[in-house]
Amino acid sequence: MALLFKVDDSRGSVWKSLFEQHAPDIDVRLWPDIGDPSQVRYFAAWQPPHDLHTRFPNLDVIFATSAGVDQFDLGELPGYIQVVRMLDPGIAQGIIEYACFAVLSLHRQVPLYLRQQRARVWQDHELTPARRRRVGVMGLGNLGVAVTQALRPFGFELRGWARSHKHIDGVQCFAGDVQLKPFLAQCDILICLLPLTDDTRGVLNAQTFAAMPKGAQLINLGRGGHLIERDLLDALDSGQLSDAVVDVLEDEPPSPDHPFWSHPNLWLTPHIGANTSPDTAFEVLLGNLRRHQRGEAMHGVIARHQGY
Amino acid sequence: MALLFKVDDSRGSVWKSLFEQHAPDIDVRLWPDIGDPSQVRYFAAWQPPHDLHTRFPNLDVIFATSAGVDQFDLGELPGYIQVVRMLDPGIAQGIIEYACFAVLSLHRQVPLYLRQQRARVWQDHELTPARRRRVGVMGLGNLGVAVTQALRPFGFELRGWARSHKHIDGVQCFAGDVQLKPFLAQCDILICLLPLTDDTRGVLNAQTFAAMPKGAQLINLGRGGHLIERDLLDALDSGQLSDAVVDVLEDEPPSPDHPFWSHPNLWLTPHIGANTSPDTAFEVLLGNLRRHQRGEAMHGVIARHQGY
Repeated sequence: MALLFKVDDSRGSVWKSLFEQHAPDIDVRLWPDIGDPSQVRYFAAWQPPHDLHTRFPNLDVIFATSAGVDQFDLGELPGYIQVVRMLDPGIAQGIIEYACFAVLSLHRQVPLYLRQQRARVWQDHELTPARRRRVGVMGLGNLGVAVTQALRPFGFELRGWARSHKHIDGVQCFAGDVQLKPFLAQCDILICLLPLTDDTRGVLNAQTFAAMPKGAQLINLGRGGHLIERDLLDALDSGQLSDAVVDVLEDEPPSPDHPFWSHPNLWLTPHIGANTSPDTAFEVLLGNLRRHQRGEAMHGVIARHQGY
Repeated sequence: MALLFKVDDSRGSVWKSLFEQHAPDIDVRLWPDIGDPSQVRYFAAWQPPHDLHTRFPNLDVIFATSAGVDQFDLGELPGYIQVVRMLDPGIAQGIIEYACFAVLSLHRQVPLYLRQQRARVWQDHELTPARRRRVGVMGLGNLGVAVTQALRPFGFELRGWARSHKHIDGVQCFAGDVQLKPFLAQCDILICLLPLTDDTRGVLNAQTFAAMPKGAQLINLGRGGHLIERDLLDALDSGQLSDAVVDVLEDEPPSPDHPFWSHPNLWLTPHIGANTSPDTAFEVLLGNLRRHQRGEAMHGVIARHQGY
């Protein structure tokens, strides 16, 4: 019974040594040294190969090393293979830090002030108090909820939207298609933390931006596939949105002539929101592996029909 | 008995209407309509004129509309006039927001990533977890303490330094000249929130930067007078400091050829850290005024010999 990792070499050796130290009974293998494929029951990867279930006839579980599993072709996998997303507290920490950095920067108009710096302009602008700044989070899974709670002490007016109705302390929640526009109308700053599914692909589009208050601001921490990039450029150019902070793109890295590199109202970072760190993720992965060995339900198992 | 404001016209009328609404017994006057100078017992201003005590022979209290009083010439004022700094919760809120924005930006290497964006480079860098990032606050008055407490939930290793020893939850505190270097040696990110006095003028200098870890980062939210600007430029150019966020300058606005406008490793904002807002400051000012009327001690009275 083996656990096969397909990750960066440097991360792979960290994973392997953590198992050797804390769970030596588990036979950990690093791609491409797969050994006897019939022994591989667990597979951990960011992007698995397509022929996984035919190459490994006894595969039980695929552990994503990421919070999302949109990079997996779930339809191709036989139903008996469980797919488990990574609920690493290190990912939540990274997303919280990035979301708070981005919200506070936009709230305090830092992109505007840095443009002024380049233009050698020393001019302050009226400050909207946090209690009158409405910050909306799309996607209220563990990451979205964690972000709302990290933002609470700053005193923002918090809004949340998800497919189904949620109750979250200090957050006015909206649910489903019918409440999407009323939610958007109250987002001075919108953070996307949705999973990428057929339902959410392209959700950050011209209609969405038009439903937000004039001059609103966008943070995309979800996936590149959530955003219609052309629509964001149009919204920034028309002033419907004033600024955007983007960490994820449909195609990464973007081509050298991608317009996001140089748009003055857009901050682009290279998918740094959060990384799974073996340091913090090891316990989570091992916990799930032990649950599976004992025949218990694992945490973070994907519901195939929802895609998250 | 009158209270005279010398502030911007727009703020002056807000102050006046707040008093009319909530404390109509107080005769509020707006500079330059001072009326009978002998009736003025209270004076509120950011920068008072020099001949204040000769113009207003019955002056009892000067209320600064700012958190610091370094802009006052305290030596010139007779000792019987009390000087009171503004303990506006709106100022603390503004400073907390700015400090968290700046710390999170530096922690997550956002200045580096925005330089990469301009150079069209898509490259992530290893992330130091917050629990291994040491953030030090110089100045542990109400603002410094508030900033440490706002940073705590992010999990940073917090350090603090002040003239006298303090006990602050979750913060390892250092005190006095003798512990300054040991404190600086543990500051990956240093935030200056000191009052500006003869003792602290120029405290952010080449020796200070040399005592910090190589590649450390600086946030100046105190006063321009704390910083030797030439020394900061040298430290950034040599790599002793990797980045700085500066909100205050010795001369504001800076001249068009000031090197801070264009230094690639320096973010400059136009003294936006916090503004006293009549909205939140009114209650604080009125509370002190009532205390004085009742013969009680006011909050925030300056100790003349310390200058804060």
